[in-house]
Amino acid sequence: MISSWEPGTWPAPHVLYGGDYNPEQWSPPVWREDAALMRKAGVNLATVGVFSWARLEPAPGEYDFGWLTEVLDLLYDAGVGVALGTPTASPPPWLTVAHPDVLPVTDSGVRYSPGSRQHFCVHHPEYQAHAMRIVSELARRLGDHPAIRIWHVHNEFACHVPQCFCDFSAAAFRTWLRERYGNVEAMNEAWGASFWSQRYRDFDEVLPPRVVPALPNPGHHLDYRRFSSDSYLAQYIAERDLLRSVTSHIPITTNYMGFFKPLDYFAWAREQDLCSTDNYPDPADPDSPMLTAMHYDLIRSLKKDVPWTVMEQTTFRVNWRPVNAAKVPGEMRRGSYQALARGAAGILFFQWRASAAGTEKFHSAMLGHAGTATPGWREVIELGEELHRLGELTTATVAADCAILFSWPNWWAVEQIGQPSAELRMLEQVRWMYRPLFEAGVTADFAAPGEDLSAYPVVLVPSLYLLTEAEGASLRRYVENGGTAVISFWSGIVDEHDRVHLGPYGGPLRELIGGDVVDVAPLQPGQTVEVAWTDGRRSAGTLWQDLVDESGGEVLARYAAGPWAGYPAVLSKQAGAGRTVYVGTRLDTAALGGLLAQVLGERDAQPTAGVERVVRRTAGASYEFLINHRGEPASVPLAAAGQDLLSGATVSGRLELPPQGVSIVRRETERR
Amino acid sequence: MISSWEPGTWPAPHVLYGGDYNPEQWSPPVWREDAALMRKAGVNLATVGVFSWARLEPAPGEYDFGWLTEVLDLLYDAGVGVALGTPTASPPPWLTVAHPDVLPVTDSGVRYSPGSRQHFCVHHPEYQAHAMRIVSELARRLGDHPAIRIWHVHNEFACHVPQCFCDFSAAAFRTWLRERYGNVEAMNEAWGASFWSQRYRDFDEVLPPRVVPALPNPGHHLDYRRFSSDSYLAQYIAERDLLRSVTSHIPITTNYMGFFKPLDYFAWAREQDLCSTDNYPDPADPDSPMLTAMHYDLIRSLKKDVPWTVMEQTTFRVNWRPVNAAKVPGEMRRGSYQALARGAAGILFFQWRASAAGTEKFHSAMLGHAGTATPGWREVIELGEELHRLGELTTATVAADCAILFSWPNWWAVEQIGQPSAELRMLEQVRWMYRPLFEAGVTADFAAPGEDLSAYPVVLVPSLYLLTEAEGASLRRYVENGGTAVISFWSGIVDEHDRVHLGPYGGPLRELIGGDVVDVAPLQPGQTVEVAWTDGRRSAGTLWQDLVDESGGEVLARYAAGPWAGYPAVLSKQAGAGRTVYVGTRLDTAALGGLLAQVLGERDAQPTAGVERVVRRTAGASYEFLINHRGEPASVPLAAAGQDLLSGATVSGRLELPPQGVSIVRRETERR
Amino acid sequence: MISSWEPGTWPAPHVLYGGDYNPEQWSPPVWREDAALMRKAGVNLATVGVFSWARLEPAPGEYDFGWLTEVLDLLYDAGVGVALGTPTASPPPWLTVAHPDVLPVTDSGVRYSPGSRQHFCVHHPEYQAHAMRIVSELARRLGDHPAIRIWHVHNEFACHVPQCFCDFSAAAFRTWLRERYGNVEAMNEAWGASFWSQRYRDFDEVLPPRVVPALPNPGHHLDYRRFSSDSYLAQYIAERDLLRSVTSHIPITTNYMGFFKPLDYFAWAREQDLCSTDNYPDPADPDSPMLTAMHYDLIRSLKKDVPWTVMEQTTFRVNWRPVNAAKVPGEMRRGSYQALARGAAGILFFQWRASAAGTEKFHSAMLGHAGTATPGWREVIELGEELHRLGELTTATVAADCAILFSWPNWWAVEQIGQPSAELRMLEQVRWMYRPLFEAGVTADFAAPGEDLSAYPVVLVPSLYLLTEAEGASLRRYVENGGTAVISFWSGIVDEHDRVHLGPYGGPLRELIGGDVVDVAPLQPGQTVEVAWTDGRRSAGTLWQDLVDESGGEVLARYAAGPWAGYPAVLSKQAGAGRTVYVGTRLDTAALGGLLAQVLGERDAQPTAGVERVVRRTAGASYEFLINHRGEPASVPLAAAGQDLLSGATVSGRLELPPQGVSIVRRETERR
Repeated sequence: MISSWEPGTWPAPHVLYGGDYNPEQWSPPVWREDAALMRKAGVNLATVGVFSWARLEPAPGEYDFGWLTEVLDLLYDAGVGVALGTPTASPPPWLTVAHPDVLPVTDSGVRYSPGSRQHFCVHHPEYQAHAMRIVSELARRLGDHPAIRIWHVHNEFACHVPQCFCDFSAAAFRTWLRERYGNVEAMNEAWGASFWSQRYRDFDEVLPPRVVPALPNPGHHLDYRRFSSDSYLAQYIAERDLLRSVTSHIPITTNYMGFFKPLDYFAWAREQDLCSTDNYPDPADPDSPMLTAMHYDLIRSLKKDVPWTVMEQTTFRVNWRPVNAAKVPGEMRRGSYQALARGAAGILFFQWRASAAGTEKFHSAMLGHAGTATPGWREVIELGEELHRLGELTTATVAADCAILFSWPNWWAVEQIGQPSAELRMLEQVRWMYRPLFEAGVTADFAAPGEDLSAYPVVLVPSLYLLTEAEGASLRRYVENGGTAVISFWSGIVDEHDRVHLGPYGGPLRELIGGDVVDVAPLQPGQTVEVAWTDGRRSAGTLWQDLVDESGGEVLARYAAGPWAGYPAVLSKQAGAGRTVYVGTRLDTAALGGLLAQVLGERDAQPTAGVERVVRRTAGASYEFLINHRGEPASVPLAAAGQDLLSGATVSGRLELPPQGVSIVRRETERR
Repeated sequence: MISSWEPGTWPAPHVLYGGDYNPEQWSPPVWREDAALMRKAGVNLATVGVFSWARLEPAPGEYDFGWLTEVLDLLYDAGVGVALGTPTASPPPWLTVAHPDVLPVTDSGVRYSPGSRQHFCVHHPEYQAHAMRIVSELARRLGDHPAIRIWHVHNEFACHVPQCFCDFSAAAFRTWLRERYGNVEAMNEAWGASFWSQRYRDFDEVLPPRVVPALPNPGHHLDYRRFSSDSYLAQYIAERDLLRSVTSHIPITTNYMGFFKPLDYFAWAREQDLCSTDNYPDPADPDSPMLTAMHYDLIRSLKKDVPWTVMEQTTFRVNWRPVNAAKVPGEMRRGSYQALARGAAGILFFQWRASAAGTEKFHSAMLGHAGTATPGWREVIELGEELHRLGELTTATVAADCAILFSWPNWWAVEQIGQPSAELRMLEQVRWMYRPLFEAGVTADFAAPGEDLSAYPVVLVPSLYLLTEAEGASLRRYVENGGTAVISFWSGIVDEHDRVHLGPYGGPLRELIGGDVVDVAPLQPGQTVEVAWTDGRRSAGTLWQDLVDESGGEVLARYAAGPWAGYPAVLSKQAGAGRTVYVGTRLDTAALGGLLAQVLGERDAQPTAGVERVVRRTAGASYEFLINHRGEPASVPLAAAGQDLLSGATVSGRLELPPQGVSIVRRETERR
Repeated sequence: MISSWEPGTWPAPHVLYGGDYNPEQWSPPVWREDAALMRKAGVNLATVGVFSWARLEPAPGEYDFGWLTEVLDLLYDAGVGVALGTPTASPPPWLTVAHPDVLPVTDSGVRYSPGSRQHFCVHHPEYQAHAMRIVSELARRLGDHPAIRIWHVHNEFACHVPQCFCDFSAAAFRTWLRERYGNVEAMNEAWGASFWSQRYRDFDEVLPPRVVPALPNPGHHLDYRRFSSDSYLAQYIAERDLLRSVTSHIPITTNYMGFFKPLDYFAWAREQDLCSTDNYPDPADPDSPMLTAMHYDLIRSLKKDVPWTVMEQTTFRVNWRPVNAAKVPGEMRRGSYQALARGAAGILFFQWRASAAGTEKFHSAMLGHAGTATPGWREVIELGEELHRLGELTTATVAADCAILFSWPNWWAVEQIGQPSAELRMLEQVRWMYRPLFEAGVTADFAAPGEDLSAYPVVLVPSLYLLTEAEGASLRRYVENGGTAVISFWSGIVDEHDRVHLGPYGGPLRELIGGDVVDVAPLQPGQTVEVAWTDGRRSAGTLWQDLVDESGGEVLARYAAGPWAGYPAVLSKQAGAGRTVYVGTRLDTAALGGLLAQVLGERDAQPTAGVERVVRRTAGASYEFLINHRGEPASVPLAAAGQDLLSGATVSGRLELPPQGVSIVRRETERR
């Protein structure tokens, strides 16, 4: 178990490079070709066995580990390490034939059929027993194979079945509720069950939040989200503990999916040795560079003292979008350097060799259907060579300029139905605040409410609707001790049970606002409200208008038109040694960017449009990553001379980046 | 039972004012604060107990009426009357735990779960028995409480479960069919069951119209709508009769939802003492003033001799739309005066105090989360004061200038699949004819086909597709006796079984048309057809073209282009002492408005754009309501001087209305 | 059985004319009126009994054929032949009451209810037994009636239930799989079951492809489509064999629905005596003339040596679209001549007399609700008279100028999820290639891959994604022997199991391409790529870009912009005595039209915009059909003089066609 991270212990000294490898789809001669080509491509890690259950246990209790041992031997001989998967994400047909009620059920009572993957209810005792048995056999038989570098538990937990609504789930939910609430009246209070005559006499009366004729109870739904995240985590922990008991020296991970709503990755990360993630940006989306950066900042932030890996990305194209745009030449490399810039220790792909059949046969791989003739292969070879020369980065850390508060319970709660506006989407709110940071080359960590924020000069708080008293107190202390918080509308509205903090809105943050939020008025899609700043500038607000009776704060901007003209739109307030800026509408990007620039203070580098900038540091050097996301050249002014780590050249003055170009400028620093 | 209405008997002498009150969500100290604040706001009616079943009967057969008695005492002491609800719209969890098949089922077989409200099949004997038992206890224990002014049965009948498709429903449907048809051959004939081999041998073979692979049988569906409306009405009647047997002196109502398709409110109104309705116009919809007026005209028309009440509206915002626009300052007051203008005896809200938890916590209330600091509270206080001075209106009636024929069976039938155009939506057709009336300050009643129309100089008939021979004869007599009917296309097409009146279209109205409708040609969305009037004007038609072979009528306009150029678009025909105008396409609003103006004759007041105008009268006075729906001032020419009832000032010449402004001009009249 | 077609044997000497007739909806006096009016309208064929099961077998095993005999007698006496339907498309209520699991089930487990039609699982033994019993009774009791000209089996097989997912279907599927694969490992290989741990131990473990949580297995789905088409065909064959055993002299058909995805009509046609089809073009769709032509070319091609019939079309309007546009005057006649031009032996309608009740009462008929007053009736009479004079056409054949390769297994496979682009829709690809042919007056046959193509100078291959080695070899031979093939992108990608032909894309067609397709890059909706031809012209491509490494072919055009600028867009290659043109993007219509014109060579007639042109021939004459689809006159230059068969006039020089006008120019030819 990697409880604290020692730089250089793992996975140094090399950046991990490779991908998922599914040898069960191929014959032994192909295995041998694969091992040779992996070596050629600089691959040093292959993820094996993720979907091998039906081949490892072809019949209940009958095992065949010979073929997998042969593959591991081949890889080991080729110098390729292995991330060995537990195959529990896709049970074989025989399991659901024997136990059809292992199959998960939707909220409207449809029982899923086998034939794809993840067709199990995580609460079903037969699933659990069979899953633990195959993991146990795997660990016992192969755990000591020298190729294994890491355990890869399951795959994309909860990806397709975020929640199950079957009767086994109902029973597990009742147990979870009993533990959470102790007595049913506490649960009734938490859920506001007096509304609509929903009071329960006993936990036994509770069902999963299946489909209802009218609007559902939000407390019920919120707890089912908590419960479901916890249930999958319990399965992770069970597999982890079993693996640790056999191979205590091998670190354990599972692959996340970035901002994935069903699982509270902050809670998950506490149970993992290191974090991994799968990232599939849409090449047709011009926001993909920003979204990728935001994704990687999140993953880095989950376990702030341990490097992380990109467990899956694609070389060229996926096959599960309606229209699967291909990456242009250089785009895969550029995206890989985004990961490296933001702290990744590994760049891995799904998958090594494209399948000839099955659901994902048209998902691009390192080695495509046309083999080494594909354009993807050329970039795979080149990137492998480059990464091999970047081992020194594995001990470099990313120092963030600010933090963004983010929490899954808040995400779950604020997007429930029955809100003032369904247009308020949590990730849109985060992106709203992240975009000006990304464009300005400001690096942000994500932090969970309640986390120690003292290291950050500035903390951003986008729509933190659900906030406990303790979490609110933590943020108040941060400000009072000298921090600066930028808080948006619809923050501090409810407690952990989705119960309103009564009084003017804001709850535990109320005294940071500089006024009383007496009500809120959502704006229609496309509707804007004019905002006038005290310095004469004009901006536009969308989505939302808080109605604030000012008291104690300084008004920075007011609504300039509409039925609520004259009400404050932006306020500032000193609180102890720090201050807050409260934003009551969704300011346009320019206005919010100006506000954040003012709050963050002067920067040591001017941003270049379209060029991402991130700095990593070791004790003796800094590494300035400059990544050109545009299809045209960029000219970047450098603050100081340095060495381009990729070309080896000394650079100074202006750095000329070609389209899709990347530069890592190394500079010696005094030892910190 | 209020079988005939004596002006002044109820609820005079004051306009009712107040809202839903859910004390079970609050502690006794809050109850006392509520009583005091209600008194301050001028509240004289609180609707209590609507969703209290789980608190009144916490376990089967165990009752707790103490808390509710305490609340009623408090309200009574504060001078607040009570509309006491029967809690049958939301059974407690224990009922569906004990009898899971009480839960209703969709047409595709999904059984709803508890956890919201209205999760019962109205045909289930256990639901019926338990509902009658709690109503009986309620009436027996609290029926003689002096606070009670009215019984409020159930809540928004059928709102979320317009139809249930379970096996209990199937059995009830068969019983209903046996009563309706006597023998199965009559049903087969009515449904056209020879088509697609659907003939039944026995009623026992009939099922609810569950999901079918191809297009369903329209007669089957139409009867299921009739049956479902009747079933909920039977539940209403059962509760009503029980309440009457205990408290014969207390009037009984239930809250409608305006133009609510599942329930035939004309049939319902016959069983009620007075009518109530819930109205939630969307502040973001510029048509809301018109739609509200139309809604209130309908409710007034259901029981033409008895005042009605707005049982629910919101002060500021609802929370069940995707984006819940807030009312601008003055908008709530203005909308309340629309109700008063159109005959309301009460203005009530959902709800008194905003919930802290549960589904509707973000639905605005008279008293919001921020308490008396909210902008809504200010308007609540002001309106309460104004209404207190308007008691004289409670005996004033609304005299309509014309009637619009409207029927639920027609609505059900004309919107079934398999019609020439699914773009023909019943309410759109009604709005099409209502809009020029509203803009011209012409007040319309709604009337059911077959109703006595002799009091109306003009009757409008928008797409009365389903029309029985008797109903048609009634309209013919109305015209022959001197009335004027404006009839649109797709009227008189089928009988009560949705069977075509064979021959040229029009059936019992055929001789009123002035030609033979030999076929119909729907227009595509966005497609228009040019219409040329005999006086040279040009208009546009949309949606529909009747193909009429003229015979006996006067052609007022013809199609001027397209494949059917030259065919009549509008005809007029003398019939007995009256006449008809037949409109074969959906004329633009200007053209229809001109036609209606010509038919209605000269008016005593010129309309002002954006200003609603309605007149109420008592034996000795007239009250001209002028309501400015625009966000800018309006200058309204007055036909004669009068007294502004709200300001007390004498007004004459031009009345200047501020944005959202309202004036009620009182004038003495000779006693009628 | 009509195993080979002798011109003139059937249905000559007259074009069939008439429609569906449902006497069970009417009384005997109406039957007599119908017979008289049919004679008046020139009707010579009525389709009877299609939905009569509930009337023929009112209770299980109780029969009533008397009324049908009476109807057949009446029709025979009026000179009207009968297409006698087997009523198996809509079982009576008593069948599903007795056997509820006869009702079909959706992939999410919803069991359909009776109340429309086609509410049966074709795999259920009780359905099969009851269906065969009523067919047997029908054949035995009425098979020798002299009115019968043809058997009409069932109705629109699979129209509403393309696949059933019940347990009976599961069992039948397993049997089908056992026959197809012999052992389960072969099936596992075919389906790529190693992916996602889907390997089966035994056929008994296989289920229908019901709803799954993630993306399904494409091989599983593809086989279920094959199986479902085969299952309905088995039902057809069972009925056919029974009818043949009783009345071997009567030809047998069933009505297709054109490009209907669920059924492989190439396979079906092999089992039928002649082909029939139902065609309901949307009058509001300007592409309807082209789509109708394409539909009729397909039906003619299914059984290339036997005439075919339009079994259903409408006179005026259907009633199952959201908005049912009516045909303009002349449009029904014009569409009927499209059928005649492309080889039809009969023009029939649904239905003779419009229903007064039931689902399709607003579907227009030959005789509408207003009877002989409807505009439709006038055209019915006129067309009947014209057709009566066109008997000589019944022996004329249509000679196609080229062939288009089309296959149902390819259609099924290429539209499965998991493809590079879901925007690639098979029929859109066919229309893309068909449109320039239609506009140029070039007539195309459709051919199944593997069919003998030697008669065609040119073969078009739109996106033939699924192609077996044998089918590919057949096309290669065609080219090597001198043929010209125009092949589009995404052809030759997978084998019959949807397994990729590994290597550069193209599989068995690879050597025809002139380069290596190393990867593919879909374009977004609305995105275009510029294409530069070697002769300097510029065009636009959409939907798709193949990335081709040229080798051995001549590059005709290249991408001129974007990330893949310079890659070939169109290549040409000589192969043996023939050549191929390979098109790597979706060229705009002008560019593709130019390419096809060049490939097809000089034509003997210049096309006139909006005027369809087709030629039929007998041994001694040619018949040039000229059909004006525009709402304005057209002037058509004639290649040679001839006789207008409809007017009798001699025509030469320019032929002036009125709007909707039709001309058939007859010219004597030397006997072939």
